[in-house]
Amino acid sequence: MIASAPGKIILFGEHAVVYGKRALVAAVNLRCRVEVKKSQNYLISSPLGKTGLDFKVHPYISFAIRRFHEVKKIEGVEVKVDSDIPIASGLGSSAAVAVATIKALDAEFETSLSDRDIFEMAKQVEIDVQGTSSGIDPFVATYGGAWIFPERKKVDIKQKFFLINLGQKSTAKMVSAVCQLRSKYPEIIDKIFDAIDFLVCEAARCNDLEKLEELISINQSLLRAIGVSTPEIDEKIAKLEREGFKAKITGAGGGGCIYGIVKDRIPEGSLVVEVSYDGAKIEDS
Amino acid sequence: MIASAPGKIILFGEHAVVYGKRALVAAVNLRCRVEVKKSQNYLISSPLGKTGLDFKVHPYISFAIRRFHEVKKIEGVEVKVDSDIPIASGLGSSAAVAVATIKALDAEFETSLSDRDIFEMAKQVEIDVQGTSSGIDPFVATYGGAWIFPERKKVDIKQKFFLINLGQKSTAKMVSAVCQLRSKYPEIIDKIFDAIDFLVCEAARCNDLEKLEELISINQSLLRAIGVSTPEIDEKIAKLEREGFKAKITGAGGGGCIYGIVKDRIPEGSLVVEVSYDGAKIEDS
Repeated sequence: MIASAPGKIILFGEHAVVYGKRALVAAVNLRCRVEVKKSQNYLISSPLGKTGLDFKVHPYISFAIRRFHEVKKIEGVEVKVDSDIPIASGLGSSAAVAVATIKALDAEFETSLSDRDIFEMAKQVEIDVQGTSSGIDPFVATYGGAWIFPERKKVDIKQKFFLINLGQKSTAKMVSAVCQLRSKYPEIIDKIFDAIDFLVCEAARCNDLEKLEELISINQSLLRAIGVSTPEIDEKIAKLEREGFKAKITGAGGGGCIYGIVKDRIPEGSLVVEVSYDGAKIEDS
Repeated sequence: MIASAPGKIILFGEHAVVYGKRALVAAVNLRCRVEVKKSQNYLISSPLGKTGLDFKVHPYISFAIRRFHEVKKIEGVEVKVDSDIPIASGLGSSAAVAVATIKALDAEFETSLSDRDIFEMAKQVEIDVQGTSSGIDPFVATYGGAWIFPERKKVDIKQKFFLINLGQKSTAKMVSAVCQLRSKYPEIIDKIFDAIDFLVCEAARCNDLEKLEELISINQSLLRAIGVSTPEIDEKIAKLEREGFKAKITGAGGGGCIYGIVKDRIPEGSLVVEVSYDGAKIEDS
């Protein structure tokens, strides 16, 4: 059985959302596909290697299988992963692989899990691996579409986005750096989070591309203010601005991806994505 | 008679101060010297040219002379200007020339103006030329030292700063651009101004250079958020960050000067300044 789940981009509001502010997040048409087959043993194959249940090499898949045991005891399973989503780039590859694995296990072992069950289990897997989870990535990977969090309010987004990957980063490290900065300058950082919160609301109701680009640029500046940009990102964005584009970090920053809005052309070396309204689903094999 | 007055740098809080928030501003050891001599005619010599009373070429000096007439009618005066302060770079050259002119006129024509009279007259000159004045530049040029505005609370600042001039800019244009952005996104921009206000307080009581650099970087990001940075400034600051410096715009932005803190070394091509506690004063001729 093959199941797939989408990656996501955080359009606006990353980091502030950790402190209860709003964020606008969309599933995109980059998917992770997971094939599972009943077996006497555990075998996981992915671009990261071939292993058995292995909580270091394949933590999300291994914990997904372990959590699935709470629903149905299984003796073994073969898992094959094939993903369009760059790893550790803020595009939700981990949540997508967890959700797709659970969805495929559910179909293969006929456990009739609801979307809500799949989302909750994938969130639990994130907690197993990361120690914490906002639930945003597994939610978007499960349901697809664009959403305002924490309300989980649906938003309709039509425009396409360009993505540029500037290399891997550690989300945990960036979240902890922001937490430290906030404990040093609580009033300053909380006002910046408030500004981001208003910005997310503005962006969610905005259909004007020029305005959206302005909001992208403001949000990028506010991310820089909380210390998650880098000279490399600043230089890349300055270069894009000279070429007539606006761009911002999507995700934790410190590396990872930047995105902007596709108008008549796209920057060299960028990837075009659009919002995907397909959540976790079974693929024809 | 020769009088001089200092230029200034806005350390933190530019733009927000226009909306009633706090700013930290310091007079620096770059001075404008103005020599005046009684004469039957008006003759103004500066690097901008030789003119009579001329409200286009020498607006600040010409309006200063016109305002001085309210105190004492004079038939004419020769004015010579010699300034260390780069023009139209956010360093308060206009206020310094106005203040130094009034101070020199006061001494030459023995009108016994107080510092307060000189400040008020120079502020009036700014209004004559620009249509508006926060009064900050003429205040600092008159009294010297470092101050929090709008309270006019004295601050003691010991460290030196490096200055890099990235070319002339129009303060009026930048102030108007921020006003437009604020009318488009009032909640977002006001929260950013609130963040800047807290940042100014934090900076005013901070003696730790690392922390001050962090605040410089945050304030620069918030200036970028309100649209007064440029790709050129962003690139220059990114380059400085790679070299281990932090820097921000000082003044209106859109060009002008950036500054940072002098620690063990300074960036290539930068100018070192320190806070000057000398306000307007008579120079030995």
